[in-house]
Amino acid sequence: MRSSQYLLSTLKETPADAEVISHQLMMRAGMIRKLASGLYTWLPSGLRVLNKVAQIVREEMDKAGAIEVLMPVVQPGDLWEESGRWDEYGPELLRIKDRHQRDFVLGPTHEEVITDLVKREISSYKQLPINLYQVQTKFRDEVRPRFGVMRGREFTMKDAYSFHMDQACLENTYQKMYDAYSAIFSRMGLDFRAVIADTGSIGGSASHEFHVLADSGEDDIAFSNGSDYAANVEMAEAIAPAPSEAAGGKAQKVATPNTTSIDAVSTLLNVDASHVVKTLLVQGEADENGAPTLVALCLRGDHQLNDIKAEKLSGVFAPLTMATDEQIATLSNTVAGYAGPVGLNINIIVDRAAAALSDFICGANEAGFHLTDANWADVAKFEIADIRNVVAGDPSPCGKGTLEIKRGIEVGHIFQLGKKYSEAMKCGVLSESGKHEILTMGCYGIGVSRIVAAAIEQNHDQHGIIWPDAIAPFKVALIPMNMHKSHRVMEAAEKIYADLTARGIEVLFDDRKERPGVMFADMELIGVPHTIVIGERNLDNQQVEYKHRRSGDKQMLDVDAVADFIAGL
Amino acid sequence: MRSSQYLLSTLKETPADAEVISHQLMMRAGMIRKLASGLYTWLPSGLRVLNKVAQIVREEMDKAGAIEVLMPVVQPGDLWEESGRWDEYGPELLRIKDRHQRDFVLGPTHEEVITDLVKREISSYKQLPINLYQVQTKFRDEVRPRFGVMRGREFTMKDAYSFHMDQACLENTYQKMYDAYSAIFSRMGLDFRAVIADTGSIGGSASHEFHVLADSGEDDIAFSNGSDYAANVEMAEAIAPAPSEAAGGKAQKVATPNTTSIDAVSTLLNVDASHVVKTLLVQGEADENGAPTLVALCLRGDHQLNDIKAEKLSGVFAPLTMATDEQIATLSNTVAGYAGPVGLNINIIVDRAAAALSDFICGANEAGFHLTDANWADVAKFEIADIRNVVAGDPSPCGKGTLEIKRGIEVGHIFQLGKKYSEAMKCGVLSESGKHEILTMGCYGIGVSRIVAAAIEQNHDQHGIIWPDAIAPFKVALIPMNMHKSHRVMEAAEKIYADLTARGIEVLFDDRKERPGVMFADMELIGVPHTIVIGERNLDNQQVEYKHRRSGDKQMLDVDAVADFIAGL
Repeated sequence: MRSSQYLLSTLKETPADAEVISHQLMMRAGMIRKLASGLYTWLPSGLRVLNKVAQIVREEMDKAGAIEVLMPVVQPGDLWEESGRWDEYGPELLRIKDRHQRDFVLGPTHEEVITDLVKREISSYKQLPINLYQVQTKFRDEVRPRFGVMRGREFTMKDAYSFHMDQACLENTYQKMYDAYSAIFSRMGLDFRAVIADTGSIGGSASHEFHVLADSGEDDIAFSNGSDYAANVEMAEAIAPAPSEAAGGKAQKVATPNTTSIDAVSTLLNVDASHVVKTLLVQGEADENGAPTLVALCLRGDHQLNDIKAEKLSGVFAPLTMATDEQIATLSNTVAGYAGPVGLNINIIVDRAAAALSDFICGANEAGFHLTDANWADVAKFEIADIRNVVAGDPSPCGKGTLEIKRGIEVGHIFQLGKKYSEAMKCGVLSESGKHEILTMGCYGIGVSRIVAAAIEQNHDQHGIIWPDAIAPFKVALIPMNMHKSHRVMEAAEKIYADLTARGIEVLFDDRKERPGVMFADMELIGVPHTIVIGERNLDNQQVEYKHRRSGDKQMLDVDAVADFIAGL
Repeated sequence: MRSSQYLLSTLKETPADAEVISHQLMMRAGMIRKLASGLYTWLPSGLRVLNKVAQIVREEMDKAGAIEVLMPVVQPGDLWEESGRWDEYGPELLRIKDRHQRDFVLGPTHEEVITDLVKREISSYKQLPINLYQVQTKFRDEVRPRFGVMRGREFTMKDAYSFHMDQACLENTYQKMYDAYSAIFSRMGLDFRAVIADTGSIGGSASHEFHVLADSGEDDIAFSNGSDYAANVEMAEAIAPAPSEAAGGKAQKVATPNTTSIDAVSTLLNVDASHVVKTLLVQGEADENGAPTLVALCLRGDHQLNDIKAEKLSGVFAPLTMATDEQIATLSNTVAGYAGPVGLNINIIVDRAAAALSDFICGANEAGFHLTDANWADVAKFEIADIRNVVAGDPSPCGKGTLEIKRGIEVGHIFQLGKKYSEAMKCGVLSESGKHEILTMGCYGIGVSRIVAAAIEQNHDQHGIIWPDAIAPFKVALIPMNMHKSHRVMEAAEKIYADLTARGIEVLFDDRKERPGVMFADMELIGVPHTIVIGERNLDNQQVEYKHRRSGDKQMLDVDAVADFIAGL
């Protein structure tokens, strides 16, 4: 492609509304343009990347036995009534009426359509399992679209749905999808983790998110440095540490006026926060008489409560809700800011790490006082559970290595969906024994357009994007210096361009009448992985300069050797 | 692809609501399924065809220098306000409101979005011309969607838009698109014609439609048997015939009571309809005083008036409107059913063919009477113009050959759009002389999903679809007879399947436990161009049977020679 006949559309200035680096670079590199809030036009180089991402996804899905279909963007509302999501789904579901005043939606996802299709097309267990996917435009009417295509309203998804007679078969396909996703992100050259994810309210039995690691990610990912274990921090199990040395002390009450935070206590008493027990009071489930209750959650002062783990415990009200001062006053014998497990008259749940402490400090259940040298033997009754977020350095729950924590951008999600949709929509087949049985489903999504942004978040420097070869808009940038003044430079550039394109290599030939500095800056901004610079001086030796975008390494190449060199990379 | 692991979904019965053959066959062959009125899911084999069509379109567009982009399906209403189409467009434009009650549309076309984009991205004449295209989902809320994907509501279009400083540059790109379209439909193996089309109310200066010829087409196409001239019948010029032999007769009034139709006149007077002049009375433009007028249009009795030609004539009111009895009574000296040019006191326009007649029959402008042996010399004043539809056998207006007329399905349209959008939306650039100049535009559409249906309308027989190789879902169907009972058949089938797929040939390997008859019928219905049948008996000679879907020709092939043979087709 000659840039003089292309739409480069690079920008020098960063658009004011672009908050994250991928959005800034996609705008500056001429990959996208905003049409309206959350709606973007893909310009030529952006679309080249998007298409490459989609192509890799398709190839690996096909290889894994999934079959491509294409379902409409516009879906009839009655299917959403049937599944129950017409009422469940919030305003992100854009509901529309056609000219006959019939209800439709712009599909944010296609469970209803595919379940309805399979119900009609598949009648026998012999036709199963089946895994159908599409690459399609989706719409989600985000209240505040932002970050460019990272959280747009219209976006491109790959969504797949598998159908099975039983859980074992689902698990088999689930594993294939896990492997296919790993292959997809590996081929794209992205540093990613498959993390154990919360199955949420749908209550499927297993779920993994695929995250591209990047400092700007919205999610915290905990992963082992000794295995491929990875989980959302919210989901990672915190292993019980070895107990501290045997308890020796005897609890002492000390005056701690106006000292209601962990920080304040550890400063006043000159101990590390890890030696203080933090007691959080939350609402419990009603007791057998229907009366409200409170529950105390005890953690080490340096640890954070994990809401998701806590609210799953029996006796704890979900969603997790902190106790009010009034509830504390009427339902317990303690006071806000000075709660502690010793002598407390409500149910107590102690985190595994806190339970390993001895001779610790905790609130004395009396305003202005804490206990020192407290021990769990002083507490009449308590349970131990994992209720905290893991932290870097924790042992990995898989038993190998310790945990590191990095930020990630979710680009894929696989999910054992179970029968939520198939039951609601009566999607079943005749089993081997001749009975009509409801199918078990899996669903598998990849944010195709989101990957483009996530790849940039992970791969950029101060000059611009650094594309992995597999998804680069062009493999090579050809920069002839002052070509319009030097016949020799033009001749060499044309020869190299012809050599490369003859091999099917995608080249961006910058034949604009621009200063070399402008061309270098544009090619670096766009992130072309390999650059060939053609200049008068080097041509004296029949040579050109090669530069690798990521490493910055340079080397000289003979003009005739360029195509071989690039093809061999 | 093994059919046991595929979604064939063939049907024995023709769905009741499928009126045209392509719709019937697409349903029966398992290519599409209806989701709602005008909304279709593409099943795997349908999507394979759709993707091949799109790929050929992309390749030829790229080759012609067009650059691919991707614009959103959902477009902001304010752009449509800017172009004026928010009010102009009928209810086919689906207008929607987002959660913030802002106006959007589901794009039936993208002139507004692309014009807005080019206005922002292109600032100098040096960046022109540019031709941007996309393959995208469109939505048109048809009042009565029908014929499956031939006239659906959601469909796939390739739309391209070019921008130019002047008409000469536009014409150059227009010709490139004409050639690219011809290459596209040729590569697809379709019998098509590029026909001169009406530029309609937009008033662009040139337009061609590309039609796939098929008996079921909605449009009549006139084309020369001696050149590549083709035009919509509405647009084809009717050449003046040689005048009849010199006029000899003298007009005679004859009684023709209750004889107001051409049929009745020619029967009563025993002459061919081609010798009768038919006089149609239509509304004229108001005269200089603003008073209403009528115009008489005279044609040969066997010819049909062409509204589009007639309403373009000066003096004729557009849109063409027949005169009412009351208007005839008050604005002319004739009577309905007996109008004729001789002695008529309104403007008279005579078709070229009618003008060549002599000694003809026409109305006498008096109830119950016609004239025989009338001649144009008897008419005080008249104009001659081309106002009729051409008929088969007319000389071609290109000067070579005579016209044939066939029916066509419009699958593409190229259009010299001019400045309609660029002026309304102020899309211009700095010219070489430093002035801001409004751009001239072309637009070029292809109905990607429609092509699939049109190809079937042209290529089918009583057994099903007959795909041209280039867009077939699979090139080869492999039919092993009773494979599940014969190890030898299975072995040969697996070997041939491996040989073919190793060469990158797309094979549908029918490994279902079905009777051979069912497999033959399905493969013919689906329309796979080439079939290899593997049976016990032929394997005695290490042979299999090849069958060509279109010709029905069969031949025996050595098992080892199959891959070479197929690859060489």
